[in-house]
Amino acid sequence: MKQAFVNDRFLTEELALIHFRDLSIMRGYGIFDFFRLVGNTPLFLDDHLNRFYESAEQMRLPIREVKQELKDIISKLVNSNNLPDSGVRLTLTGGYSEDGYSISEPNLIISQHTFKPPDKEQRSTGIKLMTFPHQRQLPQVKTIDYLMPIWLQPLIRQGDADDVLYYDKEIVTECPRNNFFIVTEDNQVLTPAMNMLKGITRMKLLHYAAPYFEVKETNISIEDIRNAKEAFVTSTTKGILPVSQVDDKQFTSGSVTVKLQEIWSKHAW
Amino acid sequence: MKQAFVNDRFLTEELALIHFRDLSIMRGYGIFDFFRLVGNTPLFLDDHLNRFYESAEQMRLPIREVKQELKDIISKLVNSNNLPDSGVRLTLTGGYSEDGYSISEPNLIISQHTFKPPDKEQRSTGIKLMTFPHQRQLPQVKTIDYLMPIWLQPLIRQGDADDVLYYDKEIVTECPRNNFFIVTEDNQVLTPAMNMLKGITRMKLLHYAAPYFEVKETNISIEDIRNAKEAFVTSTTKGILPVSQVDDKQFTSGSVTVKLQEIWSKHAW
Repeated sequence: MKQAFVNDRFLTEELALIHFRDLSIMRGYGIFDFFRLVGNTPLFLDDHLNRFYESAEQMRLPIREVKQELKDIISKLVNSNNLPDSGVRLTLTGGYSEDGYSISEPNLIISQHTFKPPDKEQRSTGIKLMTFPHQRQLPQVKTIDYLMPIWLQPLIRQGDADDVLYYDKEIVTECPRNNFFIVTEDNQVLTPAMNMLKGITRMKLLHYAAPYFEVKETNISIEDIRNAKEAFVTSTTKGILPVSQVDDKQFTSGSVTVKLQEIWSKHAW
Repeated sequence: MKQAFVNDRFLTEELALIHFRDLSIMRGYGIFDFFRLVGNTPLFLDDHLNRFYESAEQMRLPIREVKQELKDIISKLVNSNNLPDSGVRLTLTGGYSEDGYSISEPNLIISQHTFKPPDKEQRSTGIKLMTFPHQRQLPQVKTIDYLMPIWLQPLIRQGDADDVLYYDKEIVTECPRNNFFIVTEDNQVLTPAMNMLKGITRMKLLHYAAPYFEVKETNISIEDIRNAKEAFVTSTTKGILPVSQVDDKQFTSGSVTVKLQEIWSKHAW
């Protein structure tokens, strides 16, 4: 039976229940993080935990456990579940609020989820994006707020796209669950610098790619995308995935993206 | 024992539990509505139910029950609980999502909550607002998204204010849980026309006030507030509450607001 950890105990996952007075259900108030397992070994665990504690602090949600205690719980959970092709989600909510508005003692849920990484074809074909004018609230925090992208699903399907790329005042920021990169004609690798979530894959790639390419965090306009040679997205579940199209701009070349996928696979895939 | 209704049954409220895979906990995806009871009789029930069904449709969350079935459930619940000074909350979430992202069969929670209406002093003294630049996402839908105002609480306290008043490009829209009105020097009663939630109290007041004052839904700028004679907010729990201050603009007069409170009390308070 698959286990989950809720607050102070391990439970059969079906029993991982939360009362409706929790501020996540009442007010959409909570954070999370998600990391991949290679076998039963978490990938980039320290980076994900650091971000989780930072998100929690930003949202004024105290975490009872110190980092090592969370690591021990995670280790126990994944070794007990022994689940291939999966990752671990840490969810922290606003807790049971008396007045339905004030933050209370947070509820912590640690759960394990299978997911299908992109197959070889997807990693070569890539995805289509459509730009959409939106600025996420508290973009630097990994909140549970995905109201807009879930609401947008029919529009995305109508546009024959796989996902949206948010922009505000002509500057693009991120996809709802991915960071966005372009490759310029002179092989610069660029990614937005602000007003978006700083993904762990993004951060690691900036580091690993630096010896091979000029990498830069900077403003990217929709016009910059039109002039770009390649584009790709990064995320924990997808790794590096080429972007074949943004609105009506098509990308045909992909040699830098392929090289970055090779570099990435040495470290993480 | 206080009861709640979850999906298809009445339960002791303590047992009204939701599994963590619900899209409200995972992705902040859900809607709600809240109406007051006078004795055990719901106030403006049809209006609240109409808005609830509209919010649900906008968010692609099907409601199994037709309106009369919900009315019967509500009636049974409030007569069983028999709780003075309370209201009823209808919450509808994205349901148990297999992939943690796609909408599933919604969970419906109907719960009863006590609340303290403003006392005589508060209804005379009023509240202080501070303006804050923010535009709510999907403002026309009564979603559970209160990430921003809960996050803003320390800033509101630092500013010695009671709440924020959102604005975007110099045009004010709403407080997180109230609609906003001003009274001009020539006794026009104005309230924002768009990009905010259309409260039931706001709608009813526009109707009830029309025989006595010139009422208008229109753009209100921060400059308009500086030139206004009075200001007030409306909500289900607060009725009509004067605003004593917006940023550094103080309101001293209040005769139109008092008259509107009198009109309102005949219908609802």
